[in-house]
Amino acid sequence: MSNCTKMISILSRNSRTIISPINNSLTRFLSKSTSTMSSSGEVRTKRLTMDTISDNLKKMEYAVRGKVVIEATRISEELNGEHNHPFDKIIFSNIGNPHAVGQKALTWPRQVLALSQLPDELGIDHPAAPSMFPADAISRAREVKKALKGNGLGAYSHSKGVKAFREDVSAFIENRDGLKKGAIDPEDIFLTTGASDAISMVMTALIKDPSCGVMIPIPQYPIYSALLSLNNGQKVDYFLDEKKEWGLNLDEMERSLKDAKARGVNVCAFVLINPGNPTGQVLSPQEVREVLQFCSRNNLVLLGDEVYQENIYREGDEFYSCRKAAQDLGMVEDNSIELMSFHSVSKGVTGECGQRGGYLEMVGIDNDVKGLLYKLASAKLCSNVSGQAMVSLMCRGPNVDDVSYAKHEAEKKTLFDGLQSRANTVSRGLDSIPGFSCQPAAGAMYVFPKVTMPPGAIREAARVGMTADTLYSIDLLKEAGICVVPASGFGQEEGRYGFRTTFLPTEVDSMIEKIKGHYEKFCAKFSE
Amino acid sequence: MSNCTKMISILSRNSRTIISPINNSLTRFLSKSTSTMSSSGEVRTKRLTMDTISDNLKKMEYAVRGKVVIEATRISEELNGEHNHPFDKIIFSNIGNPHAVGQKALTWPRQVLALSQLPDELGIDHPAAPSMFPADAISRAREVKKALKGNGLGAYSHSKGVKAFREDVSAFIENRDGLKKGAIDPEDIFLTTGASDAISMVMTALIKDPSCGVMIPIPQYPIYSALLSLNNGQKVDYFLDEKKEWGLNLDEMERSLKDAKARGVNVCAFVLINPGNPTGQVLSPQEVREVLQFCSRNNLVLLGDEVYQENIYREGDEFYSCRKAAQDLGMVEDNSIELMSFHSVSKGVTGECGQRGGYLEMVGIDNDVKGLLYKLASAKLCSNVSGQAMVSLMCRGPNVDDVSYAKHEAEKKTLFDGLQSRANTVSRGLDSIPGFSCQPAAGAMYVFPKVTMPPGAIREAARVGMTADTLYSIDLLKEAGICVVPASGFGQEEGRYGFRTTFLPTEVDSMIEKIKGHYEKFCAKFSE
Repeated sequence: MSNCTKMISILSRNSRTIISPINNSLTRFLSKSTSTMSSSGEVRTKRLTMDTISDNLKKMEYAVRGKVVIEATRISEELNGEHNHPFDKIIFSNIGNPHAVGQKALTWPRQVLALSQLPDELGIDHPAAPSMFPADAISRAREVKKALKGNGLGAYSHSKGVKAFREDVSAFIENRDGLKKGAIDPEDIFLTTGASDAISMVMTALIKDPSCGVMIPIPQYPIYSALLSLNNGQKVDYFLDEKKEWGLNLDEMERSLKDAKARGVNVCAFVLINPGNPTGQVLSPQEVREVLQFCSRNNLVLLGDEVYQENIYREGDEFYSCRKAAQDLGMVEDNSIELMSFHSVSKGVTGECGQRGGYLEMVGIDNDVKGLLYKLASAKLCSNVSGQAMVSLMCRGPNVDDVSYAKHEAEKKTLFDGLQSRANTVSRGLDSIPGFSCQPAAGAMYVFPKVTMPPGAIREAARVGMTADTLYSIDLLKEAGICVVPASGFGQEEGRYGFRTTFLPTEVDSMIEKIKGHYEKFCAKFSE
Repeated sequence: MSNCTKMISILSRNSRTIISPINNSLTRFLSKSTSTMSSSGEVRTKRLTMDTISDNLKKMEYAVRGKVVIEATRISEELNGEHNHPFDKIIFSNIGNPHAVGQKALTWPRQVLALSQLPDELGIDHPAAPSMFPADAISRAREVKKALKGNGLGAYSHSKGVKAFREDVSAFIENRDGLKKGAIDPEDIFLTTGASDAISMVMTALIKDPSCGVMIPIPQYPIYSALLSLNNGQKVDYFLDEKKEWGLNLDEMERSLKDAKARGVNVCAFVLINPGNPTGQVLSPQEVREVLQFCSRNNLVLLGDEVYQENIYREGDEFYSCRKAAQDLGMVEDNSIELMSFHSVSKGVTGECGQRGGYLEMVGIDNDVKGLLYKLASAKLCSNVSGQAMVSLMCRGPNVDDVSYAKHEAEKKTLFDGLQSRANTVSRGLDSIPGFSCQPAAGAMYVFPKVTMPPGAIREAARVGMTADTLYSIDLLKEAGICVVPASGFGQEEGRYGFRTTFLPTEVDSMIEKIKGHYEKFCAKFSE
């Protein structure tokens, strides 16, 4: 602040007067800007403005809830009243948020959570409980309460999360990866506020100074670029191969690393997203092993984003975890890999995004580093305990001989079948639109079609200062009521255009028809 | 990494062999250190170690869950089996975690949350629901579900939080501060993962570069110093006046600001904790207004930590919010204060720490800055939705004519009376111990006694490289099973020693006796 404005500011503080109605309106007008006029008419500059705020925060971008979504939220509020939009509802297919587009919650985990919220005498021990809740929900809620040692969901837990829940995670991983019982130490698990929180913690630890870089796939899920901006680290792009169904390319990984080193980047970590977001590919065991070898050879910490591990749709594909690759390659035993892997209750068929439950698993991480991550978790106190319980319930469902087992499995199957069928419908449907090309959705919840952009759209986008696919996505929103994310928000090759859409909405057939119809008009509008 | 270790590392990757049992033990041994030996016997340096990890994370301290607490957690696990400790239970009075030390959850909000977790047909519409749940819990759960627009607790909400819940917060503030209806725009409220998350967001925005400083009270709640370390900002201490019941001292605030400026610190914000943590004081309206004037005059963003606003125990004291002071001083109307205030469901009589619900309220914050904070919230997707609902239930309880109203109010009164009585017992009890001096606990959940440290303890502490009050706290833990936090973790004047304890445990009388008995022995042990 200049000395002059400082003086004005001081003066203005010392000369409070009765405010006239005119000054009031002026104040209200001025409150929209960073300079404001006080009651006495002097101008004051705010302390926290675009000039003084963190540059890292300013440069951070997060497209999944960016410009197009903000516009969609605004329009959806207008739809509540009289409006001129050519639709009555927006299809939010911008984000993997299943319960917001009609997917139902699995019943049994919710019953357990509900009972866990209640005091014993009003919940598990209430005489009416058996008429409202199945016996296995009551018994599991009893277990949850025991795990909480009488503290209930309202007490801060251990900062890593409730130990019994972490033991459920350990057993889940052991079972998934065919490890022997006890192979995973629950002390190497942190329960977190969704996977995003875990990724954020790890990035905070990794970025020591602005020379530190992290290799991320392009296209990527933008939490990675966002956190790199926020922590002032370097984004080191490695491109996925669209022609090979968004497969990995070892040469490209080597090229990326070499280039980064040549420009002085201290590359410290490598992000693998498997199944892919936004690209929907599922890596083969061989590919995952190659990534592990690449990381070990180049001494990179591997961040394994495996939140879509349940979402694998194609016959013959399987989920092969980074942990399993490490095991199979002997890297756990000889301690030659540093792996942080992430999972979440938000995806799979659970889809419990709003419960904010996730975990971080560490393999081969230095003990002092684990200690610092624990300290970081401590300063946040703990993640929400009902979200932690949801992680436990995802990792360990009802027992095979429990009354809810069959229903729970049937619900999971119905949800999975729906996702599988829509994955197919959407990827094929979009691929069949002239001007579109769409890789199969082998996994996850997204497709990432390439869209031929009419030349007029490219020119118009340049004129108004946005990417052409942002222009396209806003047009699609305004004309057809479909909210997608421009592909530029995830990164892509120069000259490519497209978008990411989920295949979560139940009305995918009409969605494809609308996208097709809109594209024809869009091309006509911007043909020149 | 040196070229030599790099080469060794590469070699080790390319020469995988079958691992012998001896090498296995070696590996396990070596996994405790940062250098490890691979199956082929070469030494590999880990990528992420104390040398390569973020310095900011390394230097961050958070005493509330620091050294003493880690030791207490370890001992409490030993207590489950055979042990040699002179107690069978640790009293955890280190942290304001009411439900972990016997405080019961308020019934009605839990009933609403439980019903909100259930699908309609198994919850609010289930024929047995009225035999398990009171009518007003069912109707409020119906409202919660309506607020979620059918998405339930399992969908990501708006990144600022569910709008209807933010409207409840607005109405709560309006009612608390005697403002007219509609004075608080719900768009100026963010629902967050407890208050800590809100404070973290604001600090992330505020610290642009290492010259930025934030004034914090000493003693302080250590989240502030922790976040300043993590964001690489400067801690600018202003000392509270212990002799005046930890009151504010305007001269000291001016001194602190002047000194900071003189050493080149760009002071951008001021933290006020009222009621005080760890100090338990309650500021008068006059004192709060002086802080507002100080911040406005010096162009500092005011961070108002008001999470203990319900916890005011002394006849004649009242909670006077920063928002109310701004209003009363005309600073809202003439837009001459930048205020971020924080509240939480973790404290008060709600005490729902594990639910992780909190809010940030912004007054006079630049619109672009609000936009960037929204972007930051977006990258975290949203706070857990059941925690958001808990904020709504704290801000708006059952209606006066509802069936649960009387019971709810009675529960609140019982909890409050218990806190009030223990506040008195503990502050007087500790003050009466020869060698102790303890200010009254007018508010919050803590006392912060001064302890005369025997000279031998000061020498011994210096010898082992810890503060004397850490030595004292560890001794108190090991000998008497009481877990407190050394005062040095909160900051204090040079040469002062003491600790923070909550007065939450129900067994406060025996706790005081134990502290007294231990102190006599401690003084004898370290008399020379």
